[in-house]
Amino acid sequence: MANLSVSIPQGTRDFGPKESSQRSYIFNVLLEIFKRFGFMPLETPSMENLSTLTGKYGEEGDQLIYKIINSGDFMSKVSLEQRTSVTSRALIPLISERALRYDLTVPFARYVAMNHATLNYPFKRFQIQPVWRADRPQKGRYREFFQCDVDTVGSSSILNEAELICIYDQAFKKLGIPDFTIRVNNRKLLLAMAALTSKPESFSDLMNCLDKLDKIGEDGVQKELLQKGFNIEDIQILEPFFRLQGTFKERLEKLSQLLSSSEQGKEGIAEMEELYEYLKVLQIPDFKTFENLESNLSLDILLARGLNYYTGTIIEVVSARAKGSLGGGGRYDNLTGIFGLKGVTGVGISFGADRIYDLMEELNLFPPQSISTQVMVANFYLPAQKKGIMISNLLRNKGIATEFYPDPSKLQKQLKYASNKQIPFVVIIGEEEFKQNQIALKDMNKGEQYLFGDLNDESNQHQENDANKNLKKENMIEFLLRNLGMLKVQ
Amino acid sequence: MANLSVSIPQGTRDFGPKESSQRSYIFNVLLEIFKRFGFMPLETPSMENLSTLTGKYGEEGDQLIYKIINSGDFMSKVSLEQRTSVTSRALIPLISERALRYDLTVPFARYVAMNHATLNYPFKRFQIQPVWRADRPQKGRYREFFQCDVDTVGSSSILNEAELICIYDQAFKKLGIPDFTIRVNNRKLLLAMAALTSKPESFSDLMNCLDKLDKIGEDGVQKELLQKGFNIEDIQILEPFFRLQGTFKERLEKLSQLLSSSEQGKEGIAEMEELYEYLKVLQIPDFKTFENLESNLSLDILLARGLNYYTGTIIEVVSARAKGSLGGGGRYDNLTGIFGLKGVTGVGISFGADRIYDLMEELNLFPPQSISTQVMVANFYLPAQKKGIMISNLLRNKGIATEFYPDPSKLQKQLKYASNKQIPFVVIIGEEEFKQNQIALKDMNKGEQYLFGDLNDESNQHQENDANKNLKKENMIEFLLRNLGMLKVQ
Repeated sequence: MANLSVSIPQGTRDFGPKESSQRSYIFNVLLEIFKRFGFMPLETPSMENLSTLTGKYGEEGDQLIYKIINSGDFMSKVSLEQRTSVTSRALIPLISERALRYDLTVPFARYVAMNHATLNYPFKRFQIQPVWRADRPQKGRYREFFQCDVDTVGSSSILNEAELICIYDQAFKKLGIPDFTIRVNNRKLLLAMAALTSKPESFSDLMNCLDKLDKIGEDGVQKELLQKGFNIEDIQILEPFFRLQGTFKERLEKLSQLLSSSEQGKEGIAEMEELYEYLKVLQIPDFKTFENLESNLSLDILLARGLNYYTGTIIEVVSARAKGSLGGGGRYDNLTGIFGLKGVTGVGISFGADRIYDLMEELNLFPPQSISTQVMVANFYLPAQKKGIMISNLLRNKGIATEFYPDPSKLQKQLKYASNKQIPFVVIIGEEEFKQNQIALKDMNKGEQYLFGDLNDESNQHQENDANKNLKKENMIEFLLRNLGMLKVQ
Repeated sequence: MANLSVSIPQGTRDFGPKESSQRSYIFNVLLEIFKRFGFMPLETPSMENLSTLTGKYGEEGDQLIYKIINSGDFMSKVSLEQRTSVTSRALIPLISERALRYDLTVPFARYVAMNHATLNYPFKRFQIQPVWRADRPQKGRYREFFQCDVDTVGSSSILNEAELICIYDQAFKKLGIPDFTIRVNNRKLLLAMAALTSKPESFSDLMNCLDKLDKIGEDGVQKELLQKGFNIEDIQILEPFFRLQGTFKERLEKLSQLLSSSEQGKEGIAEMEELYEYLKVLQIPDFKTFENLESNLSLDILLARGLNYYTGTIIEVVSARAKGSLGGGGRYDNLTGIFGLKGVTGVGISFGADRIYDLMEELNLFPPQSISTQVMVANFYLPAQKKGIMISNLLRNKGIATEFYPDPSKLQKQLKYASNKQIPFVVIIGEEEFKQNQIALKDMNKGEQYLFGDLNDESNQHQENDANKNLKKENMIEFLLRNLGMLKVQ
């Protein structure tokens, strides 16, 4: 009997064939789009030096970093006195020099700082890799999960922001995510807005309150602002920002009036206008018109997304069908400062792979070919075995994922296998079909079965057999390609 | 200035854009072939419970497993007495419950044992993931590296072996690996051969000596055999096995005579014959004839590949151009025994991703589109900026990876960027081209420059301009698709 005590660490997951295929489907859609925009992949090691990671995520973050025990006799350098008195936290640097990556941003910054002299700027990279956090596991929060980041560093052009917004738009459309909105803001607008209040120095309090808008609503935010020392007048000053309505362009005009007294406000408005112009030029190829993008785009003056990191454009994607954001990003001006390299500007976005996966699974958005093998060739009538193997290979040659059932078991067992595995089509050659030089094809979803002429005989494969009303005039391979959605529309 | 002390742990690597793209190219070729044969992906967590891994790789292996320190106050459970007296090795289980995966086989066995009740057999999976070993780093040996395994478990049919051999053949052909040989043997033949000697009980000594054949040659092996207690008669008995010549089929016939007295030998011969028959039926679609596969196939009676794991077919791939094997595998009968689940048979192969990468890099086998972005659109004449962005999008729409240089820098700087990044084509629209409604395309490898009509004006794009002898009659997009090897041959 199997040892039922075998398990995997809490907060980690096995991705079985279906889940793994579906995850790959998402990542392939994304990286195909990244590449078309000239982004190239970067992979950094799972382990970084502990010193590279420590102090970059705050004290709480430091606790959540997975540390790796030095190999060999790691206690040999710990003195007897240290052994008896040291705390767990103080022992870590004595017995661990390496740790697992906690996010992709710090390793990326480390890579840029390390390779600054030879890097080719603007450096456009995407990175899709797992990260590890010793967090308390809960629904939707894992100790190992994938991050997916896209960044351009070393260029201050707003065109970069526009391209990343197009990437978001194309990606979520291609994945079929319904009702998504790309929210855009600019930290300069937020600063200018804060400067209108009586407490411009409390910018971070204001941002913290705004970040809670989705959770506690407008009333809640106003209550919190009063608690933080803002006054009723401030609330009235902020009121028109909460009331902002209309299209991107209309809101921009309204903001332009509201912030007309602020240099920073004007700068932010100018950046947003430039972004808007670039977006108009960057027409979405698959959808032809800018209207398609504009309808998903929202200028959201209350979008803050944390505090210290972003210095210009701020971006977030939400869907009416999902809780929380599906992605976010923005422009930063000091990526590599933590490693002593100043002035590296950049802009980046990330995709919330787990949230996107959960939403697509819930809404049944994965195309059938991302779920399983496409065809199984059954193997139960021995004289037809050789023919079955050859058919398998012909189908593979056409790019159709095909498995030949390796053991000549009962057909029923093989069909159950195909059904469990969600294989949509099964090729069946029993005694009857073999003698008639025919091939039966079972559509596992519809439960229907079709007969085709023999594939091996090139001259016969289009032949009609009047004796059987089910026989298709179409070639079986053409039929499959069409039904599997693999025929390119010309 | 950048902090030059930033580094990554010894034995780990960053994969920059080019390396990462090229590695992805290899993995994509492989997984495309795996999928066509009905294999599906499996991903297991990077961390396993330490107890899952311990004791599976021998004592030396246990030392090389990377252990992760428990989070929180991990020393709180270590008593004062233990603190002062415990050895490093004895401390590990007290402060670590998780470890990084050391290979893909044990996690795969753990997955099968854990999910045995619900798994759909035959279970065909591939797995491409990193593994970690606290080994001494040296050339070609890393502490983090990728393994790539393909296995079918729960089926004893030799067809599975045949399919895996086809996968090897298709993969190495598709990657362009020159002069590769797929060596095949069967442990039953080795056992029968050993039984002919005076020391059949010293099977493992014999295997150990044979495994060194590539390194120390035939004379060396014979010397070692004598040292291990085999006698001159044994050497003479083994002689014809060393002398085996001819095609797969001819060697099989010769072996059939040499081992005719052994039941095990007959069994091994029968399995090899069955394998050969399956291989003949499993014609390679891309190459039409069996001869193509057979010329790469070698029955190698001296192939041992270790000792205890394989129970039937043994497979190894070598290339005359590379040291060591590029892959190997075989049939095993007790995958999950270590987890208390008996009798799970299977057959699997693995690809040596790092060796394959090194060889392809050395022989310049990577296709150009696996190296970089395909087109850069330069951005130096401001009035043409909008047009340049639109052209970028048209190219992206055709699947061409295109970047628009985001900052209007000097053309020279942009060309240097493209050259550094090995981008093969650059679109240039300067004042002259803009006014003439033309587009210049620079072939960065040849150094030549061509002029095309304007892409935006559909009616004009095929127009010939007599004033310029370089103007191509072909559309620029068609020209690019052809030159980038992206036009499908009909």
